[in-house]
Amino acid sequence: MTRAAVIPAPRAPVEVRAYRDPEPEPGAVVLRTLASEVCGTDVHLWHGRLAGVPYPLIPGHVSVGEVMETGGEVRDIEDNPVRPGDAVTFLDVHGTCYNCWYCLVAKASTRCPHRRVYGITYGADEGLLGGWSERIYLKPGVQIVPLGANVTPEMWIAGGCGLPTAVHAIERAEIRLGDRVLIQGAGPVGLNACALALASGAGWVGVVDAVPHRLEAARAMGADACLPLDANLPGAVRAITGGRGADIVIEASGSPDAVPQGCAVARDGGRYVIVGQYTDNGLVEINPHTDINRKHLEIRGCWGSDLSHVWRAMEIMARFHSRFPWTSLISRRYRLEEAGDALSDVEARRVVKAVIQP
Amino acid sequence: MTRAAVIPAPRAPVEVRAYRDPEPEPGAVVLRTLASEVCGTDVHLWHGRLAGVPYPLIPGHVSVGEVMETGGEVRDIEDNPVRPGDAVTFLDVHGTCYNCWYCLVAKASTRCPHRRVYGITYGADEGLLGGWSERIYLKPGVQIVPLGANVTPEMWIAGGCGLPTAVHAIERAEIRLGDRVLIQGAGPVGLNACALALASGAGWVGVVDAVPHRLEAARAMGADACLPLDANLPGAVRAITGGRGADIVIEASGSPDAVPQGCAVARDGGRYVIVGQYTDNGLVEINPHTDINRKHLEIRGCWGSDLSHVWRAMEIMARFHSRFPWTSLISRRYRLEEAGDALSDVEARRVVKAVIQP
Amino acid sequence: MTRAAVIPAPRAPVEVRAYRDPEPEPGAVVLRTLASEVCGTDVHLWHGRLAGVPYPLIPGHVSVGEVMETGGEVRDIEDNPVRPGDAVTFLDVHGTCYNCWYCLVAKASTRCPHRRVYGITYGADEGLLGGWSERIYLKPGVQIVPLGANVTPEMWIAGGCGLPTAVHAIERAEIRLGDRVLIQGAGPVGLNACALALASGAGWVGVVDAVPHRLEAARAMGADACLPLDANLPGAVRAITGGRGADIVIEASGSPDAVPQGCAVARDGGRYVIVGQYTDNGLVEINPHTDINRKHLEIRGCWGSDLSHVWRAMEIMARFHSRFPWTSLISRRYRLEEAGDALSDVEARRVVKAVIQP
Amino acid sequence: MTRAAVIPAPRAPVEVRAYRDPEPEPGAVVLRTLASEVCGTDVHLWHGRLAGVPYPLIPGHVSVGEVMETGGEVRDIEDNPVRPGDAVTFLDVHGTCYNCWYCLVAKASTRCPHRRVYGITYGADEGLLGGWSERIYLKPGVQIVPLGANVTPEMWIAGGCGLPTAVHAIERAEIRLGDRVLIQGAGPVGLNACALALASGAGWVGVVDAVPHRLEAARAMGADACLPLDANLPGAVRAITGGRGADIVIEASGSPDAVPQGCAVARDGGRYVIVGQYTDNGLVEINPHTDINRKHLEIRGCWGSDLSHVWRAMEIMARFHSRFPWTSLISRRYRLEEAGDALSDVEARRVVKAVIQP
Repeated sequence: MTRAAVIPAPRAPVEVRAYRDPEPEPGAVVLRTLASEVCGTDVHLWHGRLAGVPYPLIPGHVSVGEVMETGGEVRDIEDNPVRPGDAVTFLDVHGTCYNCWYCLVAKASTRCPHRRVYGITYGADEGLLGGWSERIYLKPGVQIVPLGANVTPEMWIAGGCGLPTAVHAIERAEIRLGDRVLIQGAGPVGLNACALALASGAGWVGVVDAVPHRLEAARAMGADACLPLDANLPGAVRAITGGRGADIVIEASGSPDAVPQGCAVARDGGRYVIVGQYTDNGLVEINPHTDINRKHLEIRGCWGSDLSHVWRAMEIMARFHSRFPWTSLISRRYRLEEAGDALSDVEARRVVKAVIQP
Repeated sequence: MTRAAVIPAPRAPVEVRAYRDPEPEPGAVVLRTLASEVCGTDVHLWHGRLAGVPYPLIPGHVSVGEVMETGGEVRDIEDNPVRPGDAVTFLDVHGTCYNCWYCLVAKASTRCPHRRVYGITYGADEGLLGGWSERIYLKPGVQIVPLGANVTPEMWIAGGCGLPTAVHAIERAEIRLGDRVLIQGAGPVGLNACALALASGAGWVGVVDAVPHRLEAARAMGADACLPLDANLPGAVRAITGGRGADIVIEASGSPDAVPQGCAVARDGGRYVIVGQYTDNGLVEINPHTDINRKHLEIRGCWGSDLSHVWRAMEIMARFHSRFPWTSLISRRYRLEEAGDALSDVEARRVVKAVIQP
Repeated sequence: MTRAAVIPAPRAPVEVRAYRDPEPEPGAVVLRTLASEVCGTDVHLWHGRLAGVPYPLIPGHVSVGEVMETGGEVRDIEDNPVRPGDAVTFLDVHGTCYNCWYCLVAKASTRCPHRRVYGITYGADEGLLGGWSERIYLKPGVQIVPLGANVTPEMWIAGGCGLPTAVHAIERAEIRLGDRVLIQGAGPVGLNACALALASGAGWVGVVDAVPHRLEAARAMGADACLPLDANLPGAVRAITGGRGADIVIEASGSPDAVPQGCAVARDGGRYVIVGQYTDNGLVEINPHTDINRKHLEIRGCWGSDLSHVWRAMEIMARFHSRFPWTSLISRRYRLEEAGDALSDVEARRVVKAVIQP
Repeated sequence: MTRAAVIPAPRAPVEVRAYRDPEPEPGAVVLRTLASEVCGTDVHLWHGRLAGVPYPLIPGHVSVGEVMETGGEVRDIEDNPVRPGDAVTFLDVHGTCYNCWYCLVAKASTRCPHRRVYGITYGADEGLLGGWSERIYLKPGVQIVPLGANVTPEMWIAGGCGLPTAVHAIERAEIRLGDRVLIQGAGPVGLNACALALASGAGWVGVVDAVPHRLEAARAMGADACLPLDANLPGAVRAITGGRGADIVIEASGSPDAVPQGCAVARDGGRYVIVGQYTDNGLVEINPHTDINRKHLEIRGCWGSDLSHVWRAMEIMARFHSRFPWTSLISRRYRLEEAGDALSDVEARRVVKAVIQP
């Protein structure tokens, strides 16, 4: 039998349940789970705040596992065969149709209406389709990425879903060597964006957050400046940028109030990537003339990630494993029985990064 | 003596005054004015709503004139010598320094702090530096563009400053063949943007405005749909766009309320060019999650124009002079003595386009 | 029984053979063929010049048919159900994997190694998978596009595979309003590129070809200038472009010699899209200093097309059906029994466009 | 009196001559020279290989000096006043007109026909307009950039004109995090491109050159692989790139033969920046089908640099002064009297980087 941590229903306590061991159909893969992420989305799932989620649910959308068995030959994204014993991760999004207008014409597969997500929109009744489980069942077509050289399971989970999301944001940011980059928010996405902006050759990377220990993490990631969220922010940014403002601003805080502030600290003709607003936190006032039009500002919304971001995240972690202290972001490891504690700790912000190790 | 219409001071009646005939210094050009535009900015100047304007002022920033005299050899933008008798226009912006960070590093000369503008920030005490005058003095370095084949002085003034502005907006819009484009606002910029979207091969161009006779002008420009500004707009746009929304939205209304509506009618992954908000009309509420982030919207602020837009506007008008009825936008011609009437008519929206013919 | 024209083996005469009527598996569609293209590639197939082609072969990669039967619910690219009686076309490329590095990371599905092509790399032994047949079997996953308003089956076939290819080339060309565009070659791709450059708002479109009657077709498409292939070409282009050369050059001739000439007639800082070199016609000499480096030339290779190009081609043809005389490109219609004649006529360039109507 | 090293005429020995001390006109600046570069172009100048060069000539186009005197207030590119004692460099290109089609419409000021170059196209009869001189006269309008924090005069000269050129090339390369980049040539441009590709977050940077000690310099710069120029190159590149080839190739060797090889080692859909071919070294054969078209290759020619590249080069050097060993590239310092030796040593490739210190 396979044991898994399950959210039986919204707001119900997390339980450990036992399921029959899965056997792979052709094209499928069974993983023995090595580590799985606990992220803020899991707290939302626990409270039932997301629509379209089937309970009971095995959470865990970013996971690393060791291949136990494959249903015939299965190939990873580099077209190499997947073999028992390989340590791999996979894209949590599955079922992208590649047959609809968004997939094929707009080439925006993150907008495909057919996509399902491991640990979020696949329920426990459909199989071992979440990472808080001793085993994970990769259905045929799940896109598999082997861990790169020097990338440990813990390091990958420490990067978590924030890393591919930050890769997506950084691609849209189009940083040039020497650019001054301001990042709003020092959570998982913001910290990864900080690392990636540094890795991209930014001339200066500042991170702004209201919580001191989150700014400490930004400092550990290498931020040039860790700025408190107060009224002096625009002046502080202008002082470092020749009076002009940041070339690039990346919103990773999730607070609507961050948006007019981000417009204000970007320089004329600058670029503003908004990646953090992935839940609806309400309205905010902006002035279209001064915030956007007169300053020629370019604002780029960015949501979700696809396989390309995961693949590139792996390349980046393999390249920069010794430069950025991803693993140190992990505050605590939890067994399956402790999954409820993990959710409580994440919710209370007692931990930076929590990991389930079944 | 040269006669010119002058705004003596904010809110004072327009007067005709006489000035000494100018003689060109080396590199300068004296024009005999053929036509000059009256635009909404001139009404703002009359009411003293713009900062940094030196009165008394000779308005008229977009003008066409016949070359009377040059100070030695002067060359136009194609490097051809300017000769007496040539019909030319010129970029109203002068004095861009090409020696500052915005000019040379950001390559955003519209943000150069040294620029001065004919008819707006050059006062009458500095010379005949506005178009509501029998003669216009082009200082050395003013960038000169000859009228293209089949482009009449009236046609160019009918396009007015709205045409280069629309060229700038259309460049930022990056329309692809077959795209569905929605334009908010049927004023001078919106009508020109409508023409240019059609000329760019858009598959459908809709224009939305609250005023019926402005929508009539959009229809004359060739809009596929002229849509009233009401609650049915999102449904109407979705009906024509496979349920998805417009690929491209161009804001040319100047109303802050247009911005959240524009976000709403753009498709996921679409593009939104905001060009109309060139004066401060206050705040508006947006929802960063639904309006920007989740829909991957790209918003591009766009302000002002440079010589490239004027040059391209001339190419476009020469190419499409018989396809779009620019000249018919002119409602009435005014002599210098009638300049005050022209301002009143524009303010009251009794005319689509007013022209001064000294 | 279903009758189809078959190439039994390389260089063997085309025969009409009878096959069992197909019945659709789930997700498949059976079409009654209305028209199918004969293109230069079919001549190559007849002569056995392409590697990896399984004979016997039913040619015809671009086709239009009426839906006879579907295997359950099948949806088109706009997510509408496909119904008997609908007139549709489809992407000839099938089997793109969306699971490999090229599909998912590079997002260059035209480089996917798993793709198969109707009428080219699917043989007759695998089914009715070519258009020179009374019926066509659309396997599950074939991407279906309904004919747009005012697009007739003949009009679509007259555009042929050259139209989506030209859409791809025009996308890479990024034409701006007023740009001067030179097209090398007045064959199917070049003629469509001419139409699309005009539709994109180019300020001038010239077409160069060695064969007078091909230039006549370019003139019918609306080219501003039809230029013979001789030594005066660079001078002729410079005369129309202020002495600078063409802003954009599109190579659609297939002759290696066209490449250095295209570099020479492009302006400094211009763009050169090479789409015509889709078979190996040997080597050519270039001078990297003068042809590329010193003139800041950007050269963009372009090959094949995907569903987005077909979808956009349909939008374009529906929009511009009355502006460009696509249907008039058809020189002659052929019955299945005349397929061999069609190949001979295309090879001898006796026809501009040949169509099979079973 | 000011002493300067002069090339009296093509192929004549370099002499030291004395000139009257310059006095600055309004807007001009007089520098005391701290260091000036000797580059391969200077060898060409010595041999009279460049057209349009006025002899006698004071060479030295990239220089650093201490401000001695200014003609009134002069401002640097950040709009700060230039003061005696400041250590500054400047853009060697002067006189860009910002009034022609290339400057204003194409926005390609490197193609402006009016530009003059310090140390190359300004002769000694026109003033102290080259760096191999005790003093340098900066005419009004010369664009001045102060040395950044931690940037020494020697470090800047060690980067030399190769650094801004490499900045330009890297901008056109648009490297993404994790990309595999191959650089052809380990001379001044190639070594700087290697550093900048690493600074941009490339996943792997290989450098290929025929000369072992140049590859040693590449290794010192941090190249992941230093590859000899032999037949195994394509295989070596494919082995590190999943069999696909390099995502980005940068040609910095100047040899025409490098071009088909660069096409061959780029991956399908890759990008190839050609920056090294800045003198005419003749023809080379390419196959347009296999080298460009079928592989969707994008080739970008790149020539010269403008102020933005110099400004960004300074930002980069200030940021990465301790990461890349620029200063160690200097093999030897020369006094004015030794300028002829410097040319001989550069020509014979006995030195990596030679510096004149008057």
